[in-house]
Amino acid sequence: MKKTAIIMNERDNVAIAVEEIGRGAQALPGLIALERIPQGHKIALEDIPQGAAILRYGVELGYALRPIKRGGWINEDSLRLPEMPDLHDLRWGLRLDAPLPPAPRDSFEGYPNPYGGPAGTRNILAIHTTVQCVVGVLNIAVERIRRELLPQYLHVQGVVPISHDYGCGVAISAPGADIPIRTLKNLIRHPNFGGEIMLVGLGCEKLTLDMLLKPDEINAENVLMLQEIEGFDAMLEAIYAMAERKLKKLNERRRETLPLSKLLVGLQCGGSDAFSGVTANPAAGYAADMLVGAGATVLFSEASEVRDGAHLIAERCVDEATCRKLAYELQWFDDYLERGGADRSANPSPGNKEGGLSNIVEKVMGAIAKSGTAPIVEVLAPAERPSKQGMIYANTAASDFVCGTSQLASGIGVQVFMTGRGTPYGLAAAPVIKVSSRTALKQQWGDLIDFDAGPAATGGMTIAQLGESLFHQIVDVASGRVRPAAERYGIHNDLCLFNPAPIT
Amino acid sequence: MKKTAIIMNERDNVAIAVEEIGRGAQALPGLIALERIPQGHKIALEDIPQGAAILRYGVELGYALRPIKRGGWINEDSLRLPEMPDLHDLRWGLRLDAPLPPAPRDSFEGYPNPYGGPAGTRNILAIHTTVQCVVGVLNIAVERIRRELLPQYLHVQGVVPISHDYGCGVAISAPGADIPIRTLKNLIRHPNFGGEIMLVGLGCEKLTLDMLLKPDEINAENVLMLQEIEGFDAMLEAIYAMAERKLKKLNERRRETLPLSKLLVGLQCGGSDAFSGVTANPAAGYAADMLVGAGATVLFSEASEVRDGAHLIAERCVDEATCRKLAYELQWFDDYLERGGADRSANPSPGNKEGGLSNIVEKVMGAIAKSGTAPIVEVLAPAERPSKQGMIYANTAASDFVCGTSQLASGIGVQVFMTGRGTPYGLAAAPVIKVSSRTALKQQWGDLIDFDAGPAATGGMTIAQLGESLFHQIVDVASGRVRPAAERYGIHNDLCLFNPAPIT
Repeated sequence: MKKTAIIMNERDNVAIAVEEIGRGAQALPGLIALERIPQGHKIALEDIPQGAAILRYGVELGYALRPIKRGGWINEDSLRLPEMPDLHDLRWGLRLDAPLPPAPRDSFEGYPNPYGGPAGTRNILAIHTTVQCVVGVLNIAVERIRRELLPQYLHVQGVVPISHDYGCGVAISAPGADIPIRTLKNLIRHPNFGGEIMLVGLGCEKLTLDMLLKPDEINAENVLMLQEIEGFDAMLEAIYAMAERKLKKLNERRRETLPLSKLLVGLQCGGSDAFSGVTANPAAGYAADMLVGAGATVLFSEASEVRDGAHLIAERCVDEATCRKLAYELQWFDDYLERGGADRSANPSPGNKEGGLSNIVEKVMGAIAKSGTAPIVEVLAPAERPSKQGMIYANTAASDFVCGTSQLASGIGVQVFMTGRGTPYGLAAAPVIKVSSRTALKQQWGDLIDFDAGPAATGGMTIAQLGESLFHQIVDVASGRVRPAAERYGIHNDLCLFNPAPIT
Repeated sequence: MKKTAIIMNERDNVAIAVEEIGRGAQALPGLIALERIPQGHKIALEDIPQGAAILRYGVELGYALRPIKRGGWINEDSLRLPEMPDLHDLRWGLRLDAPLPPAPRDSFEGYPNPYGGPAGTRNILAIHTTVQCVVGVLNIAVERIRRELLPQYLHVQGVVPISHDYGCGVAISAPGADIPIRTLKNLIRHPNFGGEIMLVGLGCEKLTLDMLLKPDEINAENVLMLQEIEGFDAMLEAIYAMAERKLKKLNERRRETLPLSKLLVGLQCGGSDAFSGVTANPAAGYAADMLVGAGATVLFSEASEVRDGAHLIAERCVDEATCRKLAYELQWFDDYLERGGADRSANPSPGNKEGGLSNIVEKVMGAIAKSGTAPIVEVLAPAERPSKQGMIYANTAASDFVCGTSQLASGIGVQVFMTGRGTPYGLAAAPVIKVSSRTALKQQWGDLIDFDAGPAATGGMTIAQLGESLFHQIVDVASGRVRPAAERYGIHNDLCLFNPAPIT
């Protein structure tokens, strides 16, 4: 039977409308809607007095600003935010024994990583840049390389310029500048790029080669500086010739059967709605538990979308050091926002609210569902690379593009992207699987959504069934057997570096 | 006769090496170099005791950190920075009567501006975006539009996506967020885009349509929201169809002979060296004086590259309000840098120093030479549009791409870009004339440099001769009779919004 409203936890005093519920219609047996409840929004299961807690996921989303009648609509204007969890008082190691669902597969087909870390999932020539100055010339060269050279190298799947707005005109030694520099440095070592370094610089930029490369990597095989070249035509030729040399080498790479312990997956959500936390994120969380159980490493991120659940994440940290780093990273982000005159009320977006997410607490509870139940073995600063295997919190901003770029720098081979409102997001350097939280979105964007988690809301499939199916899709995409929509169509967003330091 | 070293001002106690001067070689009659003086670097004209001022442009660049012998080399390690001019104590209106050189022409061929401001210099279909989310889809559509549609509309010169990393995942109401929003809003009204508005949004982003458009502009003729469209193919078709309607209208635009009062020119420098302030910037300043004398409006920018000359700019302000706004804008930038833990020592870049610019004071003195001598009639906040005509200080960061984007938002029809070290910089939305400070750069990058100001150093041409020649080139480029190198080759850098507010 099709469900009309969902109760997430037995403690809850609200339910979520699966479809719009008309005024006077029955939401649940014996519960009549007193007003129109939009899809994904909350309906009160009981009379809620002014000041009383509104509970979803068994968690206090906030406190009623006015009395709410049983059957009434609860939206962002109905409740007051609770206090944020205190980062000085986090407790770790309380929930480390959740049983993980057994994985039906334990291997995938990946490209061995010359640096020894997680495997590649694609074989790509990346052309890195020190500075935006070179991007105009590089783009012209890349167009020609893609047209003329790439078709000759059948084992290479793409040529990707790693362009950005960093590198000069920035306070390169100010606090926070380590983040964009580390991002670029680690992007160079992304497993999809096969250890072939190709870097185009200008010559007078602040971001010097030694900040990105090791001394023995700085040579004419790997680096072109435009100020040393005799004019535009010669620049194009030099870039073309270096790309050809690198393509030849990359063309030798082959997939091998590798254990899932060599797979690194990133999780993200964007354009969330109230179903994200009911369908897509729990399904991703189940798949993540399967991956972790099979030895893979999974990152989840987005500081402002975990902050209000810091205590829940801390409880899953495997040791005190991990818990302390969690507190440090989240405190850093709190301070960053405060210094800029912002706070967590800057999130959610208007679209989130329209989709039924009343406030950041509700968004966070849905967002952290994607991290499943596995112990958290490590916490990373933005764009750091993992040193452990298992479930990892990789701190980033929640901006889809900043988070995507940061997770790429951490080395992810696949990103799983949950969306409720819908975004055509894609990355050029790694495949992105887009998971819809509602079947209506899958029906509307049939050619853009790779996986529909909507049936978990309507009762057609369980989270476990969806999670296992998503697990298979992740492994198939990693293995190159399935190409998600954004990859097939070439939908590539720009890389966006997170630079908390000033522009000069 | 070829000059070996240049003295900028009779008060100076240093000269600038036109070419490298070998140890023991004669730099000027009777002056022997005690050590190797690299090209563009400073040689002492007299013994300078420890603590004494080092004078160039008749201005104190700093104070000797150790005794310097006559004939010695002065570099960034030789001197200590002086105090910055006090912004609370600026005096205005002291230098308003500099005679401006008469302009040899008073009109150009431009596209009348439907909004009534400065004229267009090109006829371009711009496709604006609310948020990075849509960029992947838009890029695919633009490629098809450029290939299939643009060739049918002979009077339109380009299709330019106005893509950016702003729009969501940002603290949209934090202090400073007005800057990126104003930038995008004013870019929509750039005179080169002919008043034809085409905006692609997603649907759930924080940057809502009302922040960019007037109520009567928000309609299906001008705006596409991807979340309202049925899938990827339909998105491409909708963008294509709207672009076709806009191209038809733009194709009706024709150039008309317009007075130079309809011309708005932006000045910028990037990759500067010690010659920038000897050749390229003074030549640009002379051309700017001619333009202003003929009624045109000229912007100069780059807070950290004028800050140490604030007192000199203030003296040219026409009234107290302008002087106060100058102080306000520069103070804002000081505070912005300080908040981020940076200061003016973040500038100059290593390349600047290698080119002979010892510190920010020396860089600034060279940089403000580009503003010529005309009275300063207005000071703009970043990305504001001028309300007056004449010489204007438009506050921006010095980053080439942030400044370029900001000046575009202010409405410039042509940018004149002075470079010493060399950068292949270009903008897609307006032509950029690249001026080299050294003939060696023009010789090396013959196909990228549009105008060589080097002869002012070697004595081949005067600043007045070069300035007048540059004036003609600016007017010819504005009129579409000359296409600078970056425009001919399609060398287009990314737009970079200045967002001082946090990412969330």
